[in-house]
Amino acid sequence: MDPRAVRSRTAALAAARDLLMEEGWPGVTHVAVAERSGVGRTTLYRHWPDTPSLIRDTLAHHIAVAHTEPTGDLRADLLHELEASRAMLHEPATDRAIRVVVERSAVDPAFTEMKDALFRAGTRVLRDIVDGGKERGELPARLDTDLAVDQLVGPLFFRRLLANRPVPDGYVPEVVDAFLRAHKKKERAQR
Amino acid sequence: MDPRAVRSRTAALAAARDLLMEEGWPGVTHVAVAERSGVGRTTLYRHWPDTPSLIRDTLAHHIAVAHTEPTGDLRADLLHELEASRAMLHEPATDRAIRVVVERSAVDPAFTEMKDALFRAGTRVLRDIVDGGKERGELPARLDTDLAVDQLVGPLFFRRLLANRPVPDGYVPEVVDAFLRAHKKKERAQR
Repeated sequence: MDPRAVRSRTAALAAARDLLMEEGWPGVTHVAVAERSGVGRTTLYRHWPDTPSLIRDTLAHHIAVAHTEPTGDLRADLLHELEASRAMLHEPATDRAIRVVVERSAVDPAFTEMKDALFRAGTRVLRDIVDGGKERGELPARLDTDLAVDQLVGPLFFRRLLANRPVPDGYVPEVVDAFLRAHKKKERAQR
Repeated sequence: MDPRAVRSRTAALAAARDLLMEEGWPGVTHVAVAERSGVGRTTLYRHWPDTPSLIRDTLAHHIAVAHTEPTGDLRADLLHELEASRAMLHEPATDRAIRVVVERSAVDPAFTEMKDALFRAGTRVLRDIVDGGKERGELPARLDTDLAVDQLVGPLFFRRLLANRPVPDGYVPEVVDAFLRAHKKKERAQR
């Protein structure tokens, strides 16, 4: 993409993200994004031919902005990234988006593709942190990264989406420390 | 309820559960349940004035049938109950029902009540198993039962609903053993 296209795309996604947070999922339309960002509607339709693709990239952008930057400190990195996930799960717009995607992705192929893209984007950093822990020998090499991701974020999603309850302060450290007690190599060697 | 009312209710729920498994959520209607069970439609409407209440009790009955009976062997009980949850999550009708409830419960009060009832029914046995482990001193008394439930079933729900992937053989033992390594008292005492 030429630099002008990159700029217009970035401006559009920033505006779309604001709309998502302010008005929720139904607020993210080509018309509203054009008004908010000043990017022409023709340009918007060139980047995103339909509403699902616009919403998918808006959510992906929102997820990318929320991600943390791993430092190599396994426990601290897990805490930061899961606290970011916890914050996202409490945003009404994101909560709504996740619920709609969970329901629609099972029956509508456009949403299935969106869900897969969001799932990869949403778990990328956590996956990197776990793989880093394995490479540094802090987690067992045979630990399945997918299973580790499920064990780390699964409880938070279950609490929000199935129990419909807030994830309280102190919850993320409990989950991370239980995960580390279960898997961390130093402690396994003592048994 | 008099014994005849109990019998007609039981017969209706058994028929409704068959319809749910064969035709999914839209198959559970008063007309279809009346035909399948031989219970009169007037009686059905007396038990369940609307479709959401009929579906809620059908799912609750299905969950009750799927539950296991704890024996007091902590690891075995957790394995059995989570394998039952795993099986339910792979049934197309249950998968569909959970996704719809997750989406609708955030916006429709009838579904919110349904979700709460199903959540309580669905986690009841797991909660009992964890509380039993705490009473017998195998799990720490200060372990939060809600958190334990999230850690045990959260990964399975995340894998099915968010990753849209099957939960493979061997997954449940990994989750249960990680949970026990993290929390079991004997092993905590060694550290």
